Amino acid sequence: MTRHELIEQIRKKKSFLCIGLDTDLKKIPAHFLSSDDPLFEFNKAVIDATADYCVAYKPNIAFYECLGPKGWESLKKTVEYIPRDIFTIADAKRGDIGNTSTYYAKTFFETYAFDAVTVAPYMGHDSVVPFLEFEGKWAIMLALTSNPGAMDFQMQRLPDGDEHKFMCERIVSTSLKWKGAERLMFVVGATRGEDIERVRKIAKDHFLLVPGIGAQGGSLEEVCRYGMNADCGLLVNVSRDIIYPEPGPDFGQAVREKAVAYQRQMAAELKKTGIL
Amino acid sequence: MTRHELIEQIRKKKSFLCIGLDTDLKKIPAHFLSSDDPLFEFNKAVIDATADYCVAYKPNIAFYECLGPKGWESLKKTVEYIPRDIFTIADAKRGDIGNTSTYYAKTFFETYAFDAVTVAPYMGHDSVVPFLEFEGKWAIMLALTSNPGAMDFQMQRLPDGDEHKFMCERIVSTSLKWKGAERLMFVVGATRGEDIERVRKIAKDHFLLVPGIGAQGGSLEEVCRYGMNADCGLLVNVSRDIIYPEPGPDFGQAVREKAVAYQRQMAAELKKTGIL
Repeated sequence: MTRHELIEQIRKKKSFLCIGLDTDLKKIPAHFLSSDDPLFEFNKAVIDATADYCVAYKPNIAFYECLGPKGWESLKKTVEYIPRDIFTIADAKRGDIGNTSTYYAKTFFETYAFDAVTVAPYMGHDSVVPFLEFEGKWAIMLALTSNPGAMDFQMQRLPDGDEHKFMCERIVSTSLKWKGAERLMFVVGATRGEDIERVRKIAKDHFLLVPGIGAQGGSLEEVCRYGMNADCGLLVNVSRDIIYPEPGPDFGQAVREKAVAYQRQMAAELKKTGIL
Repeated sequence: MTRHELIEQIRKKKSFLCIGLDTDLKKIPAHFLSSDDPLFEFNKAVIDATADYCVAYKPNIAFYECLGPKGWESLKKTVEYIPRDIFTIADAKRGDIGNTSTYYAKTFFETYAFDAVTVAPYMGHDSVVPFLEFEGKWAIMLALTSNPGAMDFQMQRLPDGDEHKFMCERIVSTSLKWKGAERLMFVVGATRGEDIERVRKIAKDHFLLVPGIGAQGGSLEEVCRYGMNADCGLLVNVSRDIIYPEPGPDFGQAVREKAVAYQRQMAAELKKTGIL
């Protein structure tokens, strides 16, 4: 999917909502468990209920991988079921030396036909650049995540006199010089507005994938204040708060209501900044 | 596998060779391609030829993953075929927030029954500690890799006055304070002896997994000089140079000869340092 197509979709749906398909057999409603493929049937119900209100789906690969080959079948069926005009992200956080990264890229871009895959930066340019060589595909690199461990290394101070203060800033700014950098997006957690501002100042035009809204406590209003650019430039991910609503008689309806509530807040933010 | 069992195996076989099963359909001899499961048949031939001379096998997960669910079937058959007394490493470089890392750990330790998995450190303690909660299992964390991109962030200078000079040293030393740190090993590339010394000075007792010998040009003698400790403390990985020998009439024999040559050098190193 091109940048233009993604932006068009955001304008059309008045939404920059990404729904995380962290589909956990221990958490999905019991009636899905009797089907032959509970993961896929659950995802199908979520997609049917929410496709009009979100612009991206993000399966968390760990939840599929842990079920063995059958989990990957469920993943494949899920990606194929997602309407073509919706952006698809494999949340896989892959990264290895050149030739191996090319195989990981082929896995998610060709074998499973995702639009994007999340990647880890630690091994440097030759572990990420192979993901940037696919036309119309995207690598979403970890910059500053929303978990407590983000403080360990991502927020490592750099030497005085460096143009940047923290490791995560160095990583974003270095990556912008790599071949294919126009196909990069960045993961930035929503838990602190200043973190989003930190990355946005360096990567002015790039899209940011922002987890941490909802169950993790981040504020949408703050994310928009610090992260939105003239093209929106944000994909805000919500997983648990949408896909695991309070148990009730109509699962699809409950999920839809959650997604609609987020979409309305997002429409208001897009209007506030003059994008709509 | 326990540390004691691993060390016993090293003494018995006079070897600390790990063979990388980077099984690439584009590189394996043509006669394997006609079988129903070329990846497994190739791996089986390599294992049959080398099990007496190595102490570990390390499938590179990208090569299996890119083939879809079928690739994971080949992986499962491979792990089950490896003799129980040989250490098995899933080279997967995973890492995500807590709950997700637990699923990745379960994938490799339970669904596929590996002894160890390689993990990426960038997301910090709560992305790695979930891998350290499994009795008799190991997380092998990236410290200083052998690719050119290792210079980008792993060798980032820390502020003056810090007890460490480089990012990779901070990562190793911080990780040694985590709960379950006795189940950590570290990946250190073989291309520069000083890199191995750098990590060894901080992690004195831990095993190091060292890629970069053979096709990538590292020297075994140098690796041993800087990295060996009283329990050996090294697993030296060779992939391409063993599993892709010059084409010839007897694939198994050619692979075995390569493995034997490495094993002999390793036996000599173990004798030199008084371990044998």
